[in-house]
Amino acid sequence: MAEKSDAAGRYVEPGKPYDRDTRYIEDRITRDGRDGWPVEAGRYRLVAARACPWANRTLIVRRLLGLEDAISLGLCGPTHDQRSWTFDLDPGGVDPVLGIERLQQAYFARFPDYPRGITVPAIVDVPSGAVVTNDFPQITLDFETEWVKFHRDGAPDLYPEERRAEIDEVSELIYHDVNNGVYKAGFAGSQESYERAYDALFARLDWLSDRLAGQRYLVGDTITEADVRLFTTLARFDAVYHGHFKCNRQKLAEMPVLWAYARDLFQTPGFGDTIDFGQIKKHYYIVHDDINPSGIVPKGPVETVWLEPHDREELGGRPFGDGTPPPPPREGERVPELRGA
Amino acid sequence: MAEKSDAAGRYVEPGKPYDRDTRYIEDRITRDGRDGWPVEAGRYRLVAARACPWANRTLIVRRLLGLEDAISLGLCGPTHDQRSWTFDLDPGGVDPVLGIERLQQAYFARFPDYPRGITVPAIVDVPSGAVVTNDFPQITLDFETEWVKFHRDGAPDLYPEERRAEIDEVSELIYHDVNNGVYKAGFAGSQESYERAYDALFARLDWLSDRLAGQRYLVGDTITEADVRLFTTLARFDAVYHGHFKCNRQKLAEMPVLWAYARDLFQTPGFGDTIDFGQIKKHYYIVHDDINPSGIVPKGPVETVWLEPHDREELGGRPFGDGTPPPPPREGERVPELRGA
Repeated sequence: MAEKSDAAGRYVEPGKPYDRDTRYIEDRITRDGRDGWPVEAGRYRLVAARACPWANRTLIVRRLLGLEDAISLGLCGPTHDQRSWTFDLDPGGVDPVLGIERLQQAYFARFPDYPRGITVPAIVDVPSGAVVTNDFPQITLDFETEWVKFHRDGAPDLYPEERRAEIDEVSELIYHDVNNGVYKAGFAGSQESYERAYDALFARLDWLSDRLAGQRYLVGDTITEADVRLFTTLARFDAVYHGHFKCNRQKLAEMPVLWAYARDLFQTPGFGDTIDFGQIKKHYYIVHDDINPSGIVPKGPVETVWLEPHDREELGGRPFGDGTPPPPPREGERVPELRGA
Repeated sequence: MAEKSDAAGRYVEPGKPYDRDTRYIEDRITRDGRDGWPVEAGRYRLVAARACPWANRTLIVRRLLGLEDAISLGLCGPTHDQRSWTFDLDPGGVDPVLGIERLQQAYFARFPDYPRGITVPAIVDVPSGAVVTNDFPQITLDFETEWVKFHRDGAPDLYPEERRAEIDEVSELIYHDVNNGVYKAGFAGSQESYERAYDALFARLDWLSDRLAGQRYLVGDTITEADVRLFTTLARFDAVYHGHFKCNRQKLAEMPVLWAYARDLFQTPGFGDTIDFGQIKKHYYIVHDDINPSGIVPKGPVETVWLEPHDREELGGRPFGDGTPPPPPREGERVPELRGA
């Protein structure tokens, strides 16, 4: 996503709590093509950014399900200006498939006067160059339920029918208090709204810690969509939310259950291999220049701690259910090695 | 101290490393009164602030040596404007002994055109209301060596003759890389100068950790001036330097030897009972508004972890040498209780 800033580029509105604009382009790509967008291999391009926790969900799910051949991937760089994410990591600053420099161009190809934020993840219809959807909570659900025909052999069921109500319920709590909760703390315009977000965040993390103390995953005994959604926030916790967003009751690394849970997922193929801490830090510390005017990007924390043993296997659980782990990321989709002390 | 800011109140000078102004009023209060200021009970008032690490040294040493009756204490509030620390904690905002609202008035009583920063600690001559000295590294040394006649029974020798060369040497390294090193990281105006300060800081902390792994205190087997100087920075590390100054390779709480060393001192009478984390956080997060424009003060980290067992007694050592611990702080000089989760 690109978080909402005002006309002056400010993320923090003095005196006000943070209020996320949740109006998205809600078209869906489905088996029956009822919105005009049928599932079809090679037709769509997922545009994401390694930095963004909302886009990170799509990178993980695409990997876990083996959708790489069906849905190609464009990656924007970690920083963006007030108007748009850009393809500054690509040669010449141009996405090689869409032929555009700014993701905004694909939004304008769909709606010439598109008035809202230019966000990732977005799925672009390659023939027309137009954004089909940027409705991030729906995108991964559709990967799981509408793109089944293109799943790899051994793809896990991340959204099993009989668990959907529970997954949705847990995900909703995680969204408000954790995924979006860190933003409510970080972009708070008053001490009071900051403290309210901080309290809700850590109360929810305590609740999650209790839930995860005796079970390996959030719902059932396999990895589900709910774990994907919690993971992308936990992965960024010590790198950016702890300091930059002042979510500092403890570091994740000081909350033993959640830290072991997060490391377990990180070390599972499809999770940690989507994480680029360098891009994550650059994004938050450079883009939110009203929170960090100097633009200096912290050198820490040490990243290799993510590889320490987690001992969560003892809790049982079957990470991929009846399926198998995905193979390593392909050439061109690999992240840098972790940095030590 | 009040750290150097430019005319616009900025602490970070874009493109530049931080450069501390170390020119102080260097008069000394001595037994022989050679600068015109003889030691004399009741004549001088120490003006400090709980927030400031440089002033914190004087609070600790005054407590350890039992100089409370000889040298009275005025405390400025945690925040200050561009011009001066103020006595905003006192009834009516006026220091009850000096009768002034702003510490600047005592500097101007000494030098009407005093051009440099209005810093704490400062020692004020009560009869004239004029600052005698703000030369913080000398102030504690003089408490230890010139004010001997007024030390309490059982006062420790914090600057023993036979150890002075070693104390000075260690203190010098600590000053550049740690005490001032955190400021060089936090006020760096360029990525390069930040990273240089960060590297030097953590290299020195690693060196200190090695040194303290097998011995309880920095020099000899008793608490000395060197420990006081390191402690005041460590006490602020997780509360402000880790996040606000981006000294985030690890938290102090993640460096086992230094963390146990710091807790050991914290739990020693005269150290932790001078620390007010609320004032510390308010000072850094509100005063440096070019680093934290929102002025929001983090609610974390949890403070009660400072009371956890440290097990450093096993290393031997005699905290107060042939002396004894100081009695509890007196009424009016007590700090708030630590905050839990």
